[in-house]
Amino acid sequence: MDVEQRFAALETRLRELEDQVAIYQLMSAYGPLVDSGDAEATSNLWVEDGIYDWGGGSTPPAPDAPVKEGAAGAAYSRAAIADMVRGPYHQEIIQGGAGHVIGLPHIVLSGDMAVATSYSRLYRRDGENFRVWRVGANRWEFVRTPDGWRVKTRVNRVLTGAEEPRELLRSGIAK
Amino acid sequence: MDVEQRFAALETRLRELEDQVAIYQLMSAYGPLVDSGDAEATSNLWVEDGIYDWGGGSTPPAPDAPVKEGAAGAAYSRAAIADMVRGPYHQEIIQGGAGHVIGLPHIVLSGDMAVATSYSRLYRRDGENFRVWRVGANRWEFVRTPDGWRVKTRVNRVLTGAEEPRELLRSGIAK
Amino acid sequence: MDVEQRFAALETRLRELEDQVAIYQLMSAYGPLVDSGDAEATSNLWVEDGIYDWGGGSTPPAPDAPVKEGAAGAAYSRAAIADMVRGPYHQEIIQGGAGHVIGLPHIVLSGDMAVATSYSRLYRRDGENFRVWRVGANRWEFVRTPDGWRVKTRVNRVLTGAEEPRELLRSGIAK
Repeated sequence: MDVEQRFAALETRLRELEDQVAIYQLMSAYGPLVDSGDAEATSNLWVEDGIYDWGGGSTPPAPDAPVKEGAAGAAYSRAAIADMVRGPYHQEIIQGGAGHVIGLPHIVLSGDMAVATSYSRLYRRDGENFRVWRVGANRWEFVRTPDGWRVKTRVNRVLTGAEEPRELLRSGIAK
Repeated sequence: MDVEQRFAALETRLRELEDQVAIYQLMSAYGPLVDSGDAEATSNLWVEDGIYDWGGGSTPPAPDAPVKEGAAGAAYSRAAIADMVRGPYHQEIIQGGAGHVIGLPHIVLSGDMAVATSYSRLYRRDGENFRVWRVGANRWEFVRTPDGWRVKTRVNRVLTGAEEPRELLRSGIAK
Repeated sequence: MDVEQRFAALETRLRELEDQVAIYQLMSAYGPLVDSGDAEATSNLWVEDGIYDWGGGSTPPAPDAPVKEGAAGAAYSRAAIADMVRGPYHQEIIQGGAGHVIGLPHIVLSGDMAVATSYSRLYRRDGENFRVWRVGANRWEFVRTPDGWRVKTRVNRVLTGAEEPRELLRSGIAK
């Protein structure tokens, strides 16, 4: 290999590590932003037409569908994700004391796309302790944009023992 | 330093970062694979004669020892680890709704070997919430193989306050 | 760019990744050291005049202020942090079975300084299960020293729903 090729090889390897870390950074920003109630910054983790589906189904019902609040809902755009953060359901959760914690993800990069698999936990203040209200299986799909990596789709399913969350976990692991 | 030496120095540093990330990837695959019940892929995280000891003792009793199921058991080969995943004890846990979550590890690399220290938590569905059934101290030993990094031994001990799990945590931290 | 400039550019990018990983390593060492009761190694994660404030207020009361034990306290030096680990309050916690788990942090590097935002959880043994005693919002400030990265200040606030912990989470995320 000549010098030019060696530089190119190193740059490719560096770029892959930087992508891995950039996605760690994006995912570790979600909890702090959503727990502090920063609706705009939370929604900016997604692309403009990004989806966050926490039980509402991943197929958008209509272009301007409003966010469906509650324990099983979904938001099909950046604006709807911001509405979810501002909505009374989420506000009641965070004002009662809550931590949305995303665990160390497993990431499969492929060029300008990436898939991450992680657990999420939602801890809620309960007297002198916290209760673990939700433990979720999460599949995240990312896309590289001119502004850096953004979330395209996040699907979050409670680990009830059913097949769907288990398939979600299985689908994103490189073998 | 001439150009050749500078390339070699950069490659060494890159290799070390890649090793760190490869081990993050291996450890973050464990939960999703074991919670989805993928026995073969779970066991393939280990080398052929790999050990997973979750309370059964780290000295193999016999070459073909069957997996010892239950809250304190051990598996002394890849085949026995797959048996553990397929066994009724583990199946009951995951069908009831479970998350095996491995926290951000501390990793000490040394050439083709590595040691990681992490917490594990086993969350189990319990009515409208989850209970934290186990919080474990974990010591993982890895080896670089032609197919990439694999687990050689994982020892997991419940944090009961006893000295053994605390020593396990202490032993793997670089000072 | 000539060869010299290309090497310099690669080295800068590598250094940034190494800094990210070094801070992951520092943060993932905290739990294992404090849960195993290694007072000296725990306190050595901080600089000599480092602060760990878990509810006691971040302004040091006096140069040699003793550690204030209990659920809301603070330590204003490396020696005081070691005293906290050796003290009866912390010893009772770890002898009862405890896991101090730091989640995947979000890190903002700027030269020889860095800020990390993370959740902490303190799990305590409770019969056959563990209870989640504390879920904290954490802001960590680091400095690069001749011996590597060290903690300058860590502020940890329980997520009670109050504004202070939520502001702590919001303050450290890059936008």
